[in-house]
Amino acid sequence: MIDAYFQTFEDYRQQNSFDGQPTALYAPVNYIMELGGKRLRPILALMGYELFKADYRPALPLAYAIEIFHNFSLVHDDVMDAAPLRRGQATVHTKWNLNAAILSGDVMLIYAYDYLLRLDAPNRIAEIVKVFNRVAREVCEGQQLDIDFETRSDVSIPEYLRMIELKTSVLIAGALEMAGLAAGASMDDVQHLYEFGRNVGIAFQLQDDILDTFGDAAEVGKQIGGDIVQNKKTYLILKALELADGPDRDALFELMNTPTTNVEAKIDQVKNILNHYNIRALTQRAKQEFQDQAFEHLGALSIPASNRVALESLAHNLLDRAY
Amino acid sequence: MIDAYFQTFEDYRQQNSFDGQPTALYAPVNYIMELGGKRLRPILALMGYELFKADYRPALPLAYAIEIFHNFSLVHDDVMDAAPLRRGQATVHTKWNLNAAILSGDVMLIYAYDYLLRLDAPNRIAEIVKVFNRVAREVCEGQQLDIDFETRSDVSIPEYLRMIELKTSVLIAGALEMAGLAAGASMDDVQHLYEFGRNVGIAFQLQDDILDTFGDAAEVGKQIGGDIVQNKKTYLILKALELADGPDRDALFELMNTPTTNVEAKIDQVKNILNHYNIRALTQRAKQEFQDQAFEHLGALSIPASNRVALESLAHNLLDRAY
Repeated sequence: MIDAYFQTFEDYRQQNSFDGQPTALYAPVNYIMELGGKRLRPILALMGYELFKADYRPALPLAYAIEIFHNFSLVHDDVMDAAPLRRGQATVHTKWNLNAAILSGDVMLIYAYDYLLRLDAPNRIAEIVKVFNRVAREVCEGQQLDIDFETRSDVSIPEYLRMIELKTSVLIAGALEMAGLAAGASMDDVQHLYEFGRNVGIAFQLQDDILDTFGDAAEVGKQIGGDIVQNKKTYLILKALELADGPDRDALFELMNTPTTNVEAKIDQVKNILNHYNIRALTQRAKQEFQDQAFEHLGALSIPASNRVALESLAHNLLDRAY
Repeated sequence: MIDAYFQTFEDYRQQNSFDGQPTALYAPVNYIMELGGKRLRPILALMGYELFKADYRPALPLAYAIEIFHNFSLVHDDVMDAAPLRRGQATVHTKWNLNAAILSGDVMLIYAYDYLLRLDAPNRIAEIVKVFNRVAREVCEGQQLDIDFETRSDVSIPEYLRMIELKTSVLIAGALEMAGLAAGASMDDVQHLYEFGRNVGIAFQLQDDILDTFGDAAEVGKQIGGDIVQNKKTYLILKALELADGPDRDALFELMNTPTTNVEAKIDQVKNILNHYNIRALTQRAKQEFQDQAFEHLGALSIPASNRVALESLAHNLLDRAY
């Protein structure tokens, strides 16, 4: 079922590829847009629109705007994180250079607004652009907090949750919010859509934290323990620091604030402490709370239950890592 | 007279400084916005609006949006050009770092749209955002062409003019176009305003090319000959390459495609060739043609001549380097 949304979006994307001049500016844009991905955010926008309208295709420019914005943020984030690879391929700044990554990213951000303005929603377009502005700004703020947290050893759990909310959730939430606005939904329903997306996004990120440490490499598709090796203060670590006693806490603090030398040993040591305090289950419980919140908001929409099926199923698959 | 526009804009800017969180994201934004400058583009927007309206203050959010966009482009361009100084002060990437320059620039671009949406022009806001999108995209394209030209030795004069049009003129033109739209001007007048700004911008850049080579260091406020030293193929050089014969052309081509070793000697040699072909006067003539075009469009506006006085005077001062 998701395949249809995916394919419709991909067709639209291909029909609207970046063939402008100069080529040096637009080649990196096409490159990153064609690197693939699940197209989660645009599909959510299409599904969100379809909750209120029989045909979701008028929401395609919105879906595309959101996906362009998401990819803009990846291009610039990859520079900031000095990441060589994205989806197994060279990042833009690696394949081209720093200037290409900066300038092509900039033009993508502008094109996101360009497609947003192609949405046929004359009475609400100003409101939709304002939501887009807020979301875009918050994504930048989340990225800055993530950078700030790298050099801080006193990050609290609420601060961490706020960071992942800004960096990950608000774009998912905003995609649904803008879709609802574009489809003419009531402001109550728009708010429920936003809260659904916000809670799904946080639950998804907590799931990601769990899998990075406790997942199966083959299933997750990447090396396990990357967050530990990079000293990332995820929910797991912060929760353990909150619960652990004297020597355990000191050991974990020391481990997570010292550059990694022996990868395997460090992962083992950290996981031992996490296991001792039952962190996996506690994080799972936190994830479940956000997930429950999400589905409560989805259920509160003033639409026939049958209209919710596609979105509900996508969210479940997403949170079970089946999509 | 210009002082009043300047001061009104500066007051608005100070009342709308960037006090958001996280501080690391917004400190560079405040820094670059407070570095000064003539505020040419916002003043043009205010004057353009005032051609049709008694009070120009409703155009302040538009003026601010344009100035934020302009400064965003400076922050990212300074990274791309590896420039250590801007207006005599450290550039953002020098004072902070690369990541700060990228991310703070990004959030500035988003804030430009934010202020644009604060403009009270409900019937035309979508159209104004579309103009902003086009202009912003073209500025990126101009920057890319400028980068492309550095490694090309076959740039033509029309290509050069197109590059400076995109990089410099369209924002000036767009500021006036959007101001006209916001003030409810007719589409004919909006078009004349755009063409006025476009031609002023090109004339201004040609003047800049002349002064960089033939100006007086004290008057211009920077070392003379910088373009020559950096092998920039300005209008002067391209015109000389077009007109010069065998040995002169070869010598100039060689000089402008070889890294500079002896600065003084190179400037002298290039200037000798330029003088031989009367390039200063020819460039002055080209500048005058764009300038004449500009004032023709200004004169064609369907408004009382007395309404044009402020804008006319600013443009004259600008092109005489008195502003």
